[in-house]
Amino acid sequence: MRVFEIGEFGLIAKIAALIDSKSNKNTDSWKNLLIGVGDDAAAWKAHGGIELITTDILVEGTHFRLSYTEWHDLGWKSIAINISDIYAMGGKPQYALVSLAMPGLREVENVMEMFEGMIDVCNKYGIAIAGGNISASENVVINISLTGIAENSLMTRSSAKAGDLIAVFGYPGLSAAGLNALKNQRNLDPESMKLLKNAHLHPEPRLDIGPKLAACGVKTAIDISDGVLSDLAHICEASKVSAVLRTKDLPVHPLLKQHFQQDYIDMILTGGEDYELLFTAPRQVMDTVIEVMKPAPTIIGEITAGKPGEITIFDAEGKPITVDNRGWDHYKRAPSNG
Amino acid sequence: MRVFEIGEFGLIAKIAALIDSKSNKNTDSWKNLLIGVGDDAAAWKAHGGIELITTDILVEGTHFRLSYTEWHDLGWKSIAINISDIYAMGGKPQYALVSLAMPGLREVENVMEMFEGMIDVCNKYGIAIAGGNISASENVVINISLTGIAENSLMTRSSAKAGDLIAVFGYPGLSAAGLNALKNQRNLDPESMKLLKNAHLHPEPRLDIGPKLAACGVKTAIDISDGVLSDLAHICEASKVSAVLRTKDLPVHPLLKQHFQQDYIDMILTGGEDYELLFTAPRQVMDTVIEVMKPAPTIIGEITAGKPGEITIFDAEGKPITVDNRGWDHYKRAPSNG
Repeated sequence: MRVFEIGEFGLIAKIAALIDSKSNKNTDSWKNLLIGVGDDAAAWKAHGGIELITTDILVEGTHFRLSYTEWHDLGWKSIAINISDIYAMGGKPQYALVSLAMPGLREVENVMEMFEGMIDVCNKYGIAIAGGNISASENVVINISLTGIAENSLMTRSSAKAGDLIAVFGYPGLSAAGLNALKNQRNLDPESMKLLKNAHLHPEPRLDIGPKLAACGVKTAIDISDGVLSDLAHICEASKVSAVLRTKDLPVHPLLKQHFQQDYIDMILTGGEDYELLFTAPRQVMDTVIEVMKPAPTIIGEITAGKPGEITIFDAEGKPITVDNRGWDHYKRAPSNG
Repeated sequence: MRVFEIGEFGLIAKIAALIDSKSNKNTDSWKNLLIGVGDDAAAWKAHGGIELITTDILVEGTHFRLSYTEWHDLGWKSIAINISDIYAMGGKPQYALVSLAMPGLREVENVMEMFEGMIDVCNKYGIAIAGGNISASENVVINISLTGIAENSLMTRSSAKAGDLIAVFGYPGLSAAGLNALKNQRNLDPESMKLLKNAHLHPEPRLDIGPKLAACGVKTAIDISDGVLSDLAHICEASKVSAVLRTKDLPVHPLLKQHFQQDYIDMILTGGEDYELLFTAPRQVMDTVIEVMKPAPTIIGEITAGKPGEITIFDAEGKPITVDNRGWDHYKRAPSNG
């Protein structure tokens, strides 16, 4: 059986089952582990607090192309996407490690530009770059590991309950629109282009949004990396619940509707790489969040007690629709990369 | 300027200087950082204890070839080399994150074999695999991040003092000999081949050696990944001291001398990937280590107060010699990979 046949999520499920069945869990590390494989970050008890760690790999050709990506943006984004994961757990990011593999013929100046982008994002979010390593490879590969701490209780994917409202921050779909505009070299006005391009190349997680949401009492969150539908499905599967969405309630950015009249609903639902938080909470907690957080999130649906993992979407006329492509799976979409 | 012109260590020095000059250090994360860029692992104060983290990337073609590497060994080694880094700081490994990028056409069974190797090494050393991520790429790339805790004081690269004795565990050079035998398909007897092959493909850090050395009072250690000379030079540079080695005092494995009569001293000094610890300590501490640890390390030289980073090697006749190739630099040796 080939990897692309079962896809990224199928492979992760098999690996998680293997780790679960073959690991010797009679150790301090296993006993202190709070959240293992399958959430935005791992979490464990340490010295009376909670420590977090997440990791993400960016591969030239798969995750970015240097033809339309500035090195500074690449450095910024490589760490920003990990900040989003720490926030999705309710944590505060702390230490970043940078693993870099690249051809020896690359320019040192480009590497310095990339690190300037990394330092800029770290300065904004209070992170220290504490180490890493460098080696040779044919393509540029960047792996970031980011630690964090959680003062309040953790937000996870597995805690959603029937009756919870579902909300998102910002305007999902803008990153996918930016990628589309960059790849197809669409001739948009400079202001539109800048906004869409930045949504894709220079994502800025909302400062401290994770700890703030956790402090409001939110227990369930995920960052939108694979796409609204796919990431909501991750929550529904982990929490063994289902969900209802209404397209009329989705937050639609005016530029998205203007430039992608045919596709904008699909882009919002399946675009991915938005690095905004999607979360669920009972009405009372949601009211607190909407009162406290500015700009407030948008309520887009609710958690229901149906078949685990199932999502029903009601279109503008109130008819249920299904969307085939639920988001980004590195293999299901990209077998040709094999 | 191209990366291969300044090499891996030149590039790391430039990056470290950039991080040092441009980071906003007026943050909790910077204030609690004990060891940043430039040691085997990063270390920081957390909740009254010390947390550690290290990361390493393995790239197909650069670090391993699937033509002579079993998937199980690949999984084992990818985590073992990070355990060695945590031990080199005096820490105990805790949580591993696995970032994996590979072509979709690879066999799921191979990925499972690799994770079985990872789980085996984690079970031996009391580590929990706590997460990671998977994506597509043209070559297989594995990045491991490993956390740890330090109960005793840390061992670093920067604490060596003139008068310290220098010692190593085990038999450096066996890994390089194994790689040589594998690459050149040398026709050795099965027992020799097995030992050399395992030294390269299946390194086994000595269990708990890091915490044990730290408990003896050792303050200075490094794991031999680049090679004895190169890694000793890292200590000398970080500690602003020099060193003297005597080839007659090097630990020589009989098989190494037997099969590599011309090269065995070079292999011991510059081979790399041994994942044994090299450390320095005053005579009294060294006596304790040699009494307590079985098998005991071998004293190979001493730290002196000369030019920072300089290493003088005395050959069998007591004449000083110089060795050009000080160890593994991913770019200086491999510009053709660019």
